[in-house]
This record gives sequence, C-alpha cells and structure tokens, in this order.
Amino acid sequence: MNEIPADIDIDKIAELFHTTKQRVRGLLNRRTLHKTPDGNLILDKSISGVGSGTNVFLKNYEVVRGFPKIQRAMMLQSALAAHFSCKSVAVEEKMNGYNTRVAFIDNKIIALTRGGHTCPYTTEKAQTLIPEKIFTDHPGIVLCGEMAGPDSPYVPKNIYNVKSLEFFLFDIREKNTGIPLSVAAKYNIAEQYNITCTKLFGIYPIAEAYNKITRIIKNLGACGREGVVIKDPAMKQPPLKYTSSQSNCSDLQHAFTYYHDYAKSFFYSRIAREAFQSVEWNETPEEIQHRCIQLGGSILQPMIATIKKIQGEEKISENVQILVKSLQTAEKFKEHLRILGIDAIFHKPEKINNEYLVKIQKINQRTNDKTESILTGDTW
Amino acid sequence: MNEIPADIDIDKIAELFHTTKQRVRGLLNRRTLHKTPDGNLILDKSISGVGSGTNVFLKNYEVVRGFPKIQRAMMLQSALAAHFSCKSVAVEEKMNGYNTRVAFIDNKIIALTRGGHTCPYTTEKAQTLIPEKIFTDHPGIVLCGEMAGPDSPYVPKNIYNVKSLEFFLFDIREKNTGIPLSVAAKYNIAEQYNITCTKLFGIYPIAEAYNKITRIIKNLGACGREGVVIKDPAMKQPPLKYTSSQSNCSDLQHAFTYYHDYAKSFFYSRIAREAFQSVEWNETPEEIQHRCIQLGGSILQPMIATIKKIQGEEKISENVQILVKSLQTAEKFKEHLRILGIDAIFHKPEKINNEYLVKIQKINQRTNDKTESILTGDTW
Repeated sequence: MNEIPADIDIDKIAELFHTTKQRVRGLLNRRTLHKTPDGNLILDKSISGVGSGTNVFLKNYEVVRGFPKIQRAMMLQSALAAHFSCKSVAVEEKMNGYNTRVAFIDNKIIALTRGGHTCPYTTEKAQTLIPEKIFTDHPGIVLCGEMAGPDSPYVPKNIYNVKSLEFFLFDIREKNTGIPLSVAAKYNIAEQYNITCTKLFGIYPIAEAYNKITRIIKNLGACGREGVVIKDPAMKQPPLKYTSSQSNCSDLQHAFTYYHDYAKSFFYSRIAREAFQSVEWNETPEEIQHRCIQLGGSILQPMIATIKKIQGEEKISENVQILVKSLQTAEKFKEHLRILGIDAIFHKPEKINNEYLVKIQKINQRTNDKTESILTGDTW
Repeated sequence: MNEIPADIDIDKIAELFHTTKQRVRGLLNRRTLHKTPDGNLILDKSISGVGSGTNVFLKNYEVVRGFPKIQRAMMLQSALAAHFSCKSVAVEEKMNGYNTRVAFIDNKIIALTRGGHTCPYTTEKAQTLIPEKIFTDHPGIVLCGEMAGPDSPYVPKNIYNVKSLEFFLFDIREKNTGIPLSVAAKYNIAEQYNITCTKLFGIYPIAEAYNKITRIIKNLGACGREGVVIKDPAMKQPPLKYTSSQSNCSDLQHAFTYYHDYAKSFFYSRIAREAFQSVEWNETPEEIQHRCIQLGGSILQPMIATIKKIQGEEKISENVQILVKSLQTAEKFKEHLRILGIDAIFHKPEKINNEYLVKIQKINQRTNDKTESILTGDTW
C-alpha cells in the first residue's frame, strides 16, 4: 500500500467525484488516481461517472473531466435510429488531430491531452490561440477541441490548410461536472471570442440525416479527411462518430508502417509473412499489387459475405462432418466438443454403407451476435 | 488449494518429468496438470522440458509428450542459415489437417489431439488406419501425424484426394521422452507397416535448399496446399516450417468469415468498418474489388516499404515537428515525451522569424528490432 500524500483532501475529492472517501482512498492506494509531475492528480481509468484522463488541480480543487469516448456508428442508418430520440442532429467535422482540453487554472491557461497530461507544447499554443478574456468572463468552462496541423507532434497533418497548429473547438463543457453546453450556446461563445470551431455541416432532421451524412462522408474521404461527429443539438444525448474509408485505410497504412509497434495477434503475423515473402522474392510492383489485391480480398470479401448472410436472416456456422463406424463414437465426440466449449449442432446420422455420416454445424455465436447487433444499430 | 487425488503417484510423475515432487504438487494444485474425463492427466502449459498437451496415463504411468511447436521461417534463406548446422535438410509437406499423436496405451490404440485430449472420433479412425502390429512390435513409439480429409471435424479439406479422413505420418517419437527417430528410421518403419507418410520432396544440401524450397512452396501454393516442414535428417535439430502465400490468405479468409470469433484489436475494428460500410452502401462487385485493393495495399505496401528501408540500413521513425516560441517549451516537451515512454530524438531548433522549429524523430524501436532480427534470420 502506498502512502497517500498528506496534502490531499480526500473529503473534497469524494465530493467532486460524487463518491465515497473509501473509494477515493482505494484509487489513491492503487495509484489509479495519482500525482502528476506538476503536483496535480490524474485519474488513469474510468470509474463510475468519472472518466479516465480526469484531472484534479489541488490548489483550488478544480476538476477538468476526462473527455468522454464517443461511440462509433458501424451501420450509420440503424445507428442513427437506435441512438437518437431528438428530432434533428447537428453534423460537425471530426478532424484528425489530437484531442485537447483547455481550461483556466490558477489564473493561467493550460492545455491537457486526452490522457490528462498537461502538455507544455499545447499549452504554449493554447495561450497564443485563445484569448484569456473567454476565461475571465467564463471561468467555469473547459474548451474541448482538436489541435491540428503540420506542427502537431502527435498527429501531423497537412490537410487542413493550417500553417503550424490550430485549435478547433468542438465542445464547451463545465468544469467539475463535464456537462456540455448546447451546440448553439457553444457557437455563440465561440463567435463572441473569435475562436475557430470544427466545421458545422448543418443541422438535419433525423429522417434526412443518413443521406446527408453519407454524401458528406464520401466528400470528406475524397479530400483525405476523417469523418463526422453527429450530435443532439441540445447535447443531452451523447454524440456518435462516423469516419470515411480513406481515413481507415490511412490509419492502417500508418499502423503497418510501424507494424510491430502498433499491430497485433492472429492476422498480424499472417500479414507479416506476406510482406517478408514479397521482400525476399524481390517482387515487381505488379506482383506486389497482385498480392495486395489477394490480401485485401481475403480479409474483406468473406467478412462482407458473412454480414450479408446474417442480414438475410441466415446463421453463419462452420459446417463439418464426421464419418463413423459406431454411433457411440459420434455421441462421445459430441461430448468431447462440449468439454472443449465448442457450440455445435449434430445432424441426424446418414447411413453410408457400413458407416454413418454425421454433419455438424459449429455455431460461431460471437460473430452471429455481433453482426446482428450492429445490423440493428449497435455501435462498435 | 485443490485436493490432489489420492491415486496419483507424485514421485513417479516427478521422475517422468525430470522435475521435483514439489513442482508436480504445484502443477496439480494449480490444475495446470489435471485429470481428464477418462481419468488420465493432461498438462495445459509447457513447463521446462515438458510441453503443453503432454498426457500421463495413470494405469502404467506412461507419458505421451505434447507435440512441440515448430518455429516458422519468415525470411527463408537467412532462417535456413541461422537455424541449421547440418549439411543437408529433408523437406516434407506440411499438410493442412490436425495434429494427431497415436499411441498404444493399456493394449489399445488411442489418438490424442494437439491439446492432449483423447479424441474418440480420431481414435476410431486411427484404430482402422493403423495396424496394431506396429505397436505390439514397438510398444514404445508414438506416431505423430496429420489427420486430413473432408471428414475432418476440425479442418475439413478436399485438397488431398482423401475420401474420408487419412492419417499422414510425419514423426515417430519415443514414449515418455518425446525424442524423435531420424527421418530415415521413420520411413523404414512406415514402409514396413504400410503407413502413409506426408510427402518427402527430397533431402537437399543446405546450399541448394532455399531455391528448392522456394520452387516447392510456389507449386504447393498454386494447388492450395499449405507448405513444408524442413528437418535435420538426424532430427537432432528442431525442424522449421514455411508456408505458402495462398495458405496465409486462406487462413485469413477463414478467420474473417468468423471475424468476431477469431480476429482482434487495432486493425480488426478498422477492417470491420470497411465491411459494414460496403454492405450498407450496397456496393457492386467492382466497388468491393476496389475496396479490397485499397485495403490490401494499405496493409501490405507500407509494411514492405518498412522492411526494405531497414534492409537498406535505414532506421524507421515517425518524423514530426513542433514550432515553439520558447526553447524551454521544447525542453519541457522532451521531458513530457520521456514521461510518456516515447523514445524520440530532438533535432537542433531552427529559428523561423520569432519562433523555433524543432524536428523530432520518434523511434519505433520494436519494429526496427523485429525487422532487423528477421532479416538476419530470426523466426517469428
């Protein structure tokens, strides 16, 4: 057990986090809540009601809540229907930079990264880009936005016509609670203090949103831009995000350039085999292209086929068969699969000469369930 | 702590595993070594010298060792050089079925799967396919082979011209120790008892092996077959495996048909986005094809580029830059990255008007190291 620093007011934090003192002590002991080099507290994992990346500034016990994870729509149309009960949605650009929260703490502008670290570089930029007056007029707000541009040390991008690094506001939230202002209130304040916002494409009736967003996402993709965030204009319901295919591929390109740092597991090693074999065989650009087509097809075609099958009310399963002399063997084999935790349907044995053919359907329940849920609008 | 069944002779197992009684008790208590439904013991994880999937048959305290994992060559030529010190290598086909060990226990032929479970179906097949005489003549051997064919409940394949399910012998190993017979001794016994072996392509001088195997692997791939196992003919050095591109793609096709059961993590979710978007947009075969090409290229091209760079003695890194007013900010940012565990080289600041441009190279050490090691012949 670590010693809890004496200068930490447990009661105060419990109050700010709407939790018990015991819980706060536990967080501090496990170092889930711990001191940063600049002497404040950072919460590393979400606890009920308080997100990871939340900071507690100890001088005045002010809290900047972690920026909440935005759910991703996989099937846009059904996700829109399942997710929103509001009449219309605001569609804003999701930019490819890094998430930054800017707040006024102890009479200074500071900038926090998603993880809750005060970034000195982003802080310097924020102090130039954001007029202090917005905070002296509204000390209780946190500006949440994307830092984007070529001089980004995290996600350098040249696609936004930004010279160095710019701050694009997307949310204004309350200090301590993290509650967001409405979309309209955000634009009002932003305009008043001349703060650039991420692009608002429009506010669309929910029935038109799918077509509008689909057109927007195709255009964004064609320009190499990332996607959109779809919001309840009142910000009472949590937003949804949706991104372009080009942005996915560009993420993959990035991940695979640094493949052993970022990518993993089953198909990772298979893909690596392809790459090394191609290098060893000194392939021509045409041969590499052929390999890419094969690889892409191997990944995407079967997955698309599975989704379409389940869309057509079929179940997907792996169909195998055994040919046994004794029906007892089939029974024992059924038990054997059960012990291994494999979910399977055994069909009626068919007699073939002196043997029995037993068709077995192995049920891939996770894939069936996941696909069905997404087709009915669940997010990833 | 579990109670250790009274009928287990700890001393005997310690002797068979060449370990201490205390170690065996620990394995039993943690259930790493545990009873199977048929009353024998199975080892779930490898311990020093004894592989996972090892079985102890309690009636006579006979051990069938788990089949050892075969290392995979990534860059064949350098792996051959790094791995083998023998003058020539035997090249046998690696078939796409399931690994089976067949032994004679308590006067009966039984068949074990890779994990060490006695499979009733495979046992029935083995009892038909393998003459009992091989075991009455040589009670101390274990036949290790691939069960392949359309009636395989694990890996059904129609590519081997097998009617139902056949056993293809690839190793003969000693009971209790797992020590393999030489390649020649294996073929001798197999011929004598009329047991089919996996195909032997030939025994090649090590200097010719790369060209021979490359030709073999291309031909195998064209027939949809998996690959080869490369062996020291004396079986003193562990074998190597190497597989065709077509087999990798077919694995991926399989994994992606059941994507939520088998595939994972970073690129998994990105690929899923592609698939669902394609289904939602009702794409034509041409549009899907275009998407596959993009996806395959996104994965493979950057990885090939990385390997080639490192092959050319370059280091790969992510190059970013920051533009700061104060050099102190750059210093603080350097420290900030260090705290985050990011390995980075900061270049000399360049003065641009009243600011400083600092170029930063983030070092992707894992990818550099892994690639270098594979290029010098390490296996995956």
